[in-house]
Amino acid sequence: MDKYTTIEDLKHLVQKFTQERDWDKFLFPKTISIYLSVEASELLEKFIFVDNNESKQCLIDKQKEIEEELADIAYWILQMCWIYKIDLATALDKKIKANAQKYPVEKAKGNTKKYNEL
Amino acid sequence: MDKYTTIEDLKHLVQKFTQERDWDKFLFPKTISIYLSVEASELLEKFIFVDNNESKQCLIDKQKEIEEELADIAYWILQMCWIYKIDLATALDKKIKANAQKYPVEKAKGNTKKYNEL
Amino acid sequence: MDKYTTIEDLKHLVQKFTQERDWDKFLFPKTISIYLSVEASELLEKFIFVDNNESKQCLIDKQKEIEEELADIAYWILQMCWIYKIDLATALDKKIKANAQKYPVEKAKGNTKKYNEL
Amino acid sequence: MDKYTTIEDLKHLVQKFTQERDWDKFLFPKTISIYLSVEASELLEKFIFVDNNESKQCLIDKQKEIEEELADIAYWILQMCWIYKIDLATALDKKIKANAQKYPVEKAKGNTKKYNEL
Repeated sequence: MDKYTTIEDLKHLVQKFTQERDWDKFLFPKTISIYLSVEASELLEKFIFVDNNESKQCLIDKQKEIEEELADIAYWILQMCWIYKIDLATALDKKIKANAQKYPVEKAKGNTKKYNEL
Repeated sequence: MDKYTTIEDLKHLVQKFTQERDWDKFLFPKTISIYLSVEASELLEKFIFVDNNESKQCLIDKQKEIEEELADIAYWILQMCWIYKIDLATALDKKIKANAQKYPVEKAKGNTKKYNEL
Repeated sequence: MDKYTTIEDLKHLVQKFTQERDWDKFLFPKTISIYLSVEASELLEKFIFVDNNESKQCLIDKQKEIEEELADIAYWILQMCWIYKIDLATALDKKIKANAQKYPVEKAKGNTKKYNEL
Repeated sequence: MDKYTTIEDLKHLVQKFTQERDWDKFLFPKTISIYLSVEASELLEKFIFVDNNESKQCLIDKQKEIEEELADIAYWILQMCWIYKIDLATALDKKIKANAQKYPVEKAKGNTKKYNEL
């Protein structure tokens, strides 16, 4: 579905869910940010005992749960962008361009150094 | 842009950035999950002293920084979905359907109770 | 009890619990750090809908749960310090001295600016 | 120092630092909880690329930074307990007793299952 689904489509999906329940009024930017942090922790918890490489298998073993956690995070990002009129595609495009300048290919290729250590 | 941009388009955007730098090999599910948690905290930090309602103004005052943090979180979600072949639109659709059952409109409308307290 | 209990006493308490269950072998610094992050999120979740000032009443209403979350975080800090031979009192003393230099009383008094904005 | 330092001593240390700067008034339970989450993420970030076992060496290589992050987390726990009159030693003792019941030695020994899967 990712091939045909626009960000706007997903925004509509989350918006409809929230509006039907009259939940918009609870969703301040700070509240949504806490949800993002809480959901990210729930995802991370799935990998607590495995090593990096093992986490690939873990993702397969717990696929349903992990996809649910990823969906939760995406849900809150979309919610924030919907309610507060942020264009996510633009924001992402800008950020990647900024990162491309901080991490020029010839310096960053194949290493994990931070931009201020390159 | 959200109107015309598909999830797949955004996946291509992040994928291109990562592959040019040969960074895919560092990006295990566990690593990406830690990034998600770290970026969510960076977003949350922007709102540390304001109240819920004030966080709306805070979002306007710090719009550039906050959009960058949201883009970072979206980046890692898309990265995870791209590398590990997860269809985000499907995952989100499923999750919202599951939540709709846990939170039926007639019970959940206008309150913030958890589904097990409804 | 805080009046008479040393950090060392608490380290013994957590150590005994872990050793009886033969859990030390699972507790790498990275694992403990993930636990810290997860437990901090669980604490934060208690305050998701309240405002800053309301969170004082929330702390009273959910005292038992909140004390449990605080204990969990303390548990992992002590566990890390115990297993990896870190003297917590020394580390805290050093950090507060460093912060006292970053935040001199005459500049920092009564405001929440970051040290690089003072 | 952990041998001779009581929790109360550390509470005094953090309290003095905060009161000199007149910062108590900013420190609501929710604010402190966000700080805990943010600091825990900063600690976790140190271990982002290493594996569990490698994180032991990482802790040695980045000892100063890591001790600072641990001190920050301890600082906020103590701050919360000081301002809101929570006895940390009692809270920890209670929590460990509760955990001892959830994880009886004979069932929990040597495995990482959650109590509801034992």
